[in-house]
Amino acid sequence: MVGKYKVRTDLAMENGEKYEKDNVEISGVVIHKSYNQEKDIRTTVVKIESEHGAKMMEKPIGTYITLEAPNMAVPDEGYHREVSVELAGHLKKLLPPNLDSVLVVGLGNRNITPDALGPMAIEHVRITRHIIREYGEQALGEDQVPMISALVPGVMAQTGMDTMEILQGVIAQTSPDVILIIDALAARSTKRLSCTIQLTDTGINPGSGVGNYRCGLNEESLHIPVIGIGIPTVIDAGTIVHDAVSNLLETLEESEIDEFLSELISPSLNGMCVTPKDIDETVERLSFTISEGINMALKRA
Amino acid sequence: MVGKYKVRTDLAMENGEKYEKDNVEISGVVIHKSYNQEKDIRTTVVKIESEHGAKMMEKPIGTYITLEAPNMAVPDEGYHREVSVELAGHLKKLLPPNLDSVLVVGLGNRNITPDALGPMAIEHVRITRHIIREYGEQALGEDQVPMISALVPGVMAQTGMDTMEILQGVIAQTSPDVILIIDALAARSTKRLSCTIQLTDTGINPGSGVGNYRCGLNEESLHIPVIGIGIPTVIDAGTIVHDAVSNLLETLEESEIDEFLSELISPSLNGMCVTPKDIDETVERLSFTISEGINMALKRA
Amino acid sequence: MVGKYKVRTDLAMENGEKYEKDNVEISGVVIHKSYNQEKDIRTTVVKIESEHGAKMMEKPIGTYITLEAPNMAVPDEGYHREVSVELAGHLKKLLPPNLDSVLVVGLGNRNITPDALGPMAIEHVRITRHIIREYGEQALGEDQVPMISALVPGVMAQTGMDTMEILQGVIAQTSPDVILIIDALAARSTKRLSCTIQLTDTGINPGSGVGNYRCGLNEESLHIPVIGIGIPTVIDAGTIVHDAVSNLLETLEESEIDEFLSELISPSLNGMCVTPKDIDETVERLSFTISEGINMALKRA
Amino acid sequence: MVGKYKVRTDLAMENGEKYEKDNVEISGVVIHKSYNQEKDIRTTVVKIESEHGAKMMEKPIGTYITLEAPNMAVPDEGYHREVSVELAGHLKKLLPPNLDSVLVVGLGNRNITPDALGPMAIEHVRITRHIIREYGEQALGEDQVPMISALVPGVMAQTGMDTMEILQGVIAQTSPDVILIIDALAARSTKRLSCTIQLTDTGINPGSGVGNYRCGLNEESLHIPVIGIGIPTVIDAGTIVHDAVSNLLETLEESEIDEFLSELISPSLNGMCVTPKDIDETVERLSFTISEGINMALKRA
Repeated sequence: MVGKYKVRTDLAMENGEKYEKDNVEISGVVIHKSYNQEKDIRTTVVKIESEHGAKMMEKPIGTYITLEAPNMAVPDEGYHREVSVELAGHLKKLLPPNLDSVLVVGLGNRNITPDALGPMAIEHVRITRHIIREYGEQALGEDQVPMISALVPGVMAQTGMDTMEILQGVIAQTSPDVILIIDALAARSTKRLSCTIQLTDTGINPGSGVGNYRCGLNEESLHIPVIGIGIPTVIDAGTIVHDAVSNLLETLEESEIDEFLSELISPSLNGMCVTPKDIDETVERLSFTISEGINMALKRA
Repeated sequence: MVGKYKVRTDLAMENGEKYEKDNVEISGVVIHKSYNQEKDIRTTVVKIESEHGAKMMEKPIGTYITLEAPNMAVPDEGYHREVSVELAGHLKKLLPPNLDSVLVVGLGNRNITPDALGPMAIEHVRITRHIIREYGEQALGEDQVPMISALVPGVMAQTGMDTMEILQGVIAQTSPDVILIIDALAARSTKRLSCTIQLTDTGINPGSGVGNYRCGLNEESLHIPVIGIGIPTVIDAGTIVHDAVSNLLETLEESEIDEFLSELISPSLNGMCVTPKDIDETVERLSFTISEGINMALKRA
Repeated sequence: MVGKYKVRTDLAMENGEKYEKDNVEISGVVIHKSYNQEKDIRTTVVKIESEHGAKMMEKPIGTYITLEAPNMAVPDEGYHREVSVELAGHLKKLLPPNLDSVLVVGLGNRNITPDALGPMAIEHVRITRHIIREYGEQALGEDQVPMISALVPGVMAQTGMDTMEILQGVIAQTSPDVILIIDALAARSTKRLSCTIQLTDTGINPGSGVGNYRCGLNEESLHIPVIGIGIPTVIDAGTIVHDAVSNLLETLEESEIDEFLSELISPSLNGMCVTPKDIDETVERLSFTISEGINMALKRA
Repeated sequence: MVGKYKVRTDLAMENGEKYEKDNVEISGVVIHKSYNQEKDIRTTVVKIESEHGAKMMEKPIGTYITLEAPNMAVPDEGYHREVSVELAGHLKKLLPPNLDSVLVVGLGNRNITPDALGPMAIEHVRITRHIIREYGEQALGEDQVPMISALVPGVMAQTGMDTMEILQGVIAQTSPDVILIIDALAARSTKRLSCTIQLTDTGINPGSGVGNYRCGLNEESLHIPVIGIGIPTVIDAGTIVHDAVSNLLETLEESEIDEFLSELISPSLNGMCVTPKDIDETVERLSFTISEGINMALKRA
């Protein structure tokens, strides 16, 4: 028998939607939604609190904050700034207090456009560690921040190393208090592409984004708190087909559809991704929205 | 009623396939296939010879030569050279004899990866017009070629002008004998992406590629022979779904499927394209394969 | 005898400085200077009014407005906006009244960083011609502007054509009322690099910038008003040496120095340019400052 | 008194030249030259064997192999391959025998063209560590090589970390037997730019290249053998002036010249570099020449 086709999304809130549709409450999962009409930003906080919840949601235990900001997909500097402010607010609450040093990591492959979000965002993060170490905090003037360092580790095909190995080595040498990891994500629905930010205290987990990370990058493996920040930029081509066909065949049993689809989808759509035509420009803008949010969140009040 | 969903391909041979499947011969269309086992290159020549054929094939009257070279999607310098040689051979036959001057045009948007094929290929075309005009042909040594000029006109959103206007202006000033236009195409089947070259004496026609050209760029509109050279780099996201679902529902009437699909597909997949994950690197390699083919074809024996 | 080494600058005001130093007034040249202390922008208007003045200044008859804004070389969004406002003000005065259509041209080679200013600036210019032609002016809402089109013609080594030929062709097809040409310039003094804008109604003249344009692009050759906008991004390596040595040998006759230098400088420094180490980032920022200035100037009050 | 202007070159052979000119032998320094007429490659091996030699040469004790290949500055694929072969031959001799794993590092700032040599070269190095660890050596077929990993650490302004810290961390995690570091260098003479490769077993030392590395990256600091591979892509603007003026004033005392020059040069030329106009394309080609040399050297016979 062919393997079940696995629809994949990195957004916890999308995994929650299938239960909502059926009006099913899952024990161990608390979902809270709010909408800021003025800013047109929809916020969903998913808290997975038990192993049962984790299994049902196919995501590790932890908090997932999702901002949906439809206008983020278009160029509007003022709006992007508002999203950055919103992001900064949530990020601040996830950060440990009395932070002395932060390592910001941009995952992904700079040479694959929809995967370049992390490396591009790193370029605009304000880096201060070398200045503070050389001249002390007062060198930064009134604009005080912790020691901020940054790394673009590259993907395994470029480095031959697990991202985990590189991060463990750099953490051992530089002892940051917390690590922020920026990555491009895969969504399930086209309407989420380029206009959704997910923030989570569970780090980055296998199969996320366009590339693949063999092991989870999280507090368990890196021994310091790990905050993941991601924006979906692609959908697996198979997912598009799966969802269209599922809608069509709602009357069939789910297992029948899956078996049928795994045969239909796998060979030809393998390695294909669905992405908006204007993704090159969009990723550049989004990389600023994220780095600005990080820069704001790290400023000491 | 919602409009019929329009499956779109720039490859004449793909439009031919639907008739082949049903073993239908179309009057006014001659299709000839051959396979070079040693090189693993499959060649399909579609000749559309009448208005009836043009209507059935949804392409203008003319000759369409398609090379399918599966290994072209991977990095193998020797193989790419063989494809360039093959391309050069066909191109030479389409070119007018006793050529004095050629204008090579790279269509598309350099900032959208799958659409950058044309602009990137132009970068490697050997340019000689300014040298011959300044120093005469002997300045080129033994390596004689006609006067070769090149232009990357940009797309309408970048220029505010129809590509047609720009080309008409430049042709009026520089009087080339023939124009070669390189463009990224849209295919229908994932197995054609990045490994198929279409060469045609009908130029480039509306709806081709990732961007849109309002008018056909062909001998009728430009008043000199126009040869189009293209490689499919994307598939419309709607097409992927259409074809998957069609396979599934073979028993339904085509018209039922179409009506159903146009409702299903249009809103969410609009502006989405399906493209291989490694398209950034692939387009760079393919741009060399094409420019090398052109450089070889233009050498005087 | 070896040819005299030719120190080259595209800035009219730099050619003026040698006369100022000696307190010499040149008939046919009027120079007016002002300084805005609050904005820290120094403005020099050089009017060359006679052939004698043109010969002495080594520049065609016309008006040259130079803005020196020292902070423009560093990233400060607010300051760049002020420079754009200043640029827009001067540009507005040079533009013909009741403008219906404008062609903006970005000269230079996109692949040579200090020469990429023109092509990069074009990417941020607001393009409207295709929208107004399709939907009428009201499609732009309250934000009315003339029909704006844009072109990046490339340099002769890339196209085989004179920029002149391309522009003449496009002008013939699209009939703009005025043409704005953006180009990277060569300066004589390092302190002018990246922080000086020259605006002139004489267009762009041979030997300007990093690349070379064989003929002047001006009202005489293009038959419509031509406004040149440039920022110096390089200095010829020979110029640096020339000026350093000249300072050193002030006591020698100029002609002795020149003869000596042409021997010393020419062979080894040919093809070398002096440029700030951070030119890649600087050119990107400056391209925005210019395009914003153009966008503001073209808005109908 | 103003500080002495410090002429800077990363090429040991250039530091040797001042002594050769005066026909001075330095104890502790052995220089051997050879010329391959057929290939037009000039090889200089400088061995610094004592502290005295190191002081005179202003470089650490060790071996410096310099290949001068004038045609390397122009695009000629065949010639570049020959240089790669030559480079591979020398590199093989410097590598420890029975190599199990190699870490290749590309220093420099990818966003500053003349400094991007290292990051660009890394893109073409064959990476095998992850494959061998997952599937064993036999997965590579006949084309056996050691475990090869690679890293682009970025420069301090981008990361906030010393390159040293990052490398120490990654070495601790992945235990390579040897580290190859690729970096863009600064030369003293324009005729060396883009056509000289220096190979040394002393690693990379402070002040090398366009960026700055606070500490030496060498066997002493990294505890494994470190081989530095560099190509000069820039000259300090001050050096150009210094050398031109020195030639001019040969009759003055060196100390007089230096004092005079430090006043003359420092303020205005600070942060300026001299670089060939075609450096963008050249660096891309050279990055292939180096990575090919490395790929050849690492193949097991």
